[in-house]
Amino acid sequence: MLTDTRVTIVGLGLMGGSLSRALRGKCAGLAGVDVKPEVVTRAVREGFVDQASTELAKGLAGADLCILAEPVRAILDTLEGIAELTKGPLAVMDLGSTKRDVVRAMQALPSQVDAIGGHPMCGKEHAGLEHADGALFQGAAFALTPSTRTSEGLRALAQELVAAVGARPIFMDAERHDRLVGAISHLPYLSSSLLVELAQAVDDPGVWDLAGPGFRDSTRLAASDTTMMMDILMTNRDVVLAWLGRYKQLLSSLEETLQSGDEAVLATRLQSSQARRASIFQPGRAASQADDGHSG
Amino acid sequence: MLTDTRVTIVGLGLMGGSLSRALRGKCAGLAGVDVKPEVVTRAVREGFVDQASTELAKGLAGADLCILAEPVRAILDTLEGIAELTKGPLAVMDLGSTKRDVVRAMQALPSQVDAIGGHPMCGKEHAGLEHADGALFQGAAFALTPSTRTSEGLRALAQELVAAVGARPIFMDAERHDRLVGAISHLPYLSSSLLVELAQAVDDPGVWDLAGPGFRDSTRLAASDTTMMMDILMTNRDVVLAWLGRYKQLLSSLEETLQSGDEAVLATRLQSSQARRASIFQPGRAASQADDGHSG
Repeated sequence: MLTDTRVTIVGLGLMGGSLSRALRGKCAGLAGVDVKPEVVTRAVREGFVDQASTELAKGLAGADLCILAEPVRAILDTLEGIAELTKGPLAVMDLGSTKRDVVRAMQALPSQVDAIGGHPMCGKEHAGLEHADGALFQGAAFALTPSTRTSEGLRALAQELVAAVGARPIFMDAERHDRLVGAISHLPYLSSSLLVELAQAVDDPGVWDLAGPGFRDSTRLAASDTTMMMDILMTNRDVVLAWLGRYKQLLSSLEETLQSGDEAVLATRLQSSQARRASIFQPGRAASQADDGHSG
Repeated sequence: MLTDTRVTIVGLGLMGGSLSRALRGKCAGLAGVDVKPEVVTRAVREGFVDQASTELAKGLAGADLCILAEPVRAILDTLEGIAELTKGPLAVMDLGSTKRDVVRAMQALPSQVDAIGGHPMCGKEHAGLEHADGALFQGAAFALTPSTRTSEGLRALAQELVAAVGARPIFMDAERHDRLVGAISHLPYLSSSLLVELAQAVDDPGVWDLAGPGFRDSTRLAASDTTMMMDILMTNRDVVLAWLGRYKQLLSSLEETLQSGDEAVLATRLQSSQARRASIFQPGRAASQADDGHSG
């Protein structure tokens, strides 16, 4: 039961801070760990957590469940540290944006550590504790990726936690997760970044004066935290490269259609995407209610 | 003076309807024209305009300024009709998303017709009068593209009208306008549509369950009205193809960098786009306050 669980959140940025707000009053205790002393101080002062430390060992003392809310490669480092620090039983979950490396590392943890991967599909374009928002997870999809070793008890606890913060738990294996988010999250990030590069390449300051809401929305992901994104890209590189290749093919065929001037073919393609997009994000559907920006 | 001007809006969709709401009480009279009888009826019943008709000739009777709020190729057709219908002096402005063809057609109008191109950089992903919003233009850039024949008086009136609806007038020639919006609006639309195609190509229904706010924002333009977008793409085809080519180059070089695993080079590119994006859409800056979606 979540109400009996003492939770320690490692990484008090946007995601960790938001999670602490969302879990407040729903678990038996909240502790925090962050590498930055000023973040630790602030997290305690503003009531994000009951206690906090810059040291993982201190933060883990008394914890039943440790939630890693760091960039993916920091999560991998922390998982190594946890293996050394943990004597008694401990449950571990993470919020990292790619899951294959994380679940592989979880699989290799000492037997007293029970672990499950997690990835909430929400975020904001601004990182940091100061942007934390307890409503961040409301209506968001929340992938849960067990390893073959993950206990039934931890699966149930993770599911309860996800529901408690207002999100929709979706169990899947890490391979499938990384393949899907490569297409709907990592590739959109790259294309967004490229749109900013293209506008820069126009080499006319008028572009920035004219840029409106369409440009703003289509480049929002380009504003994501680059440390987080580098970890994502480097731990999902094979998948991202495969989707990049597919995207280039689609781009080239669209270019040919536009070049040919065949309006019927072009219109059919655009209408198909328009209808598909409209069917996903209907008013009232969960995904359309979440906040803007990129998942952590 | 706008307060002395009787305005007729041709095309009572999202843009025309929003403009009528924004101009209410700021001009000497508002009439409307739309091809759909039910839209004409609704526009009068709900007070968008004082009177409306499905016939251009009737709608133009008594007008000082006619504003064309239709898709670009419909605007071109209407401009031809206006030339035949107009005996006395008439001022004409349009809200079309591409400007070269429109300004060329304006240049060829009879001497009693004084015309100027216009393009508000705002919109919504939902078309139609029912989504009209008088605040749509608040804080938006509004390009004004005169022809060599446009009078000083009409330039001033257009500038006054743009300010009256809360937008920022930006004068530029039609060539430059089309080049800039090709990069910051038409190319983002195509890349957005391609992202939906890519997600479809994943061929796993799980993508739609997982899709979060990042995917939602980066594909918002794909939901734009396709009739409007086809007109935009076909009247700015040379420019869009040029930017598509440039975008492909950027994409290929990014692919090579990711393939090489050179993290320093990749991080520098992503950080550069991130910083640029952050500098454009700072909190409080005009563009970031406008509504979402695509310009009409």
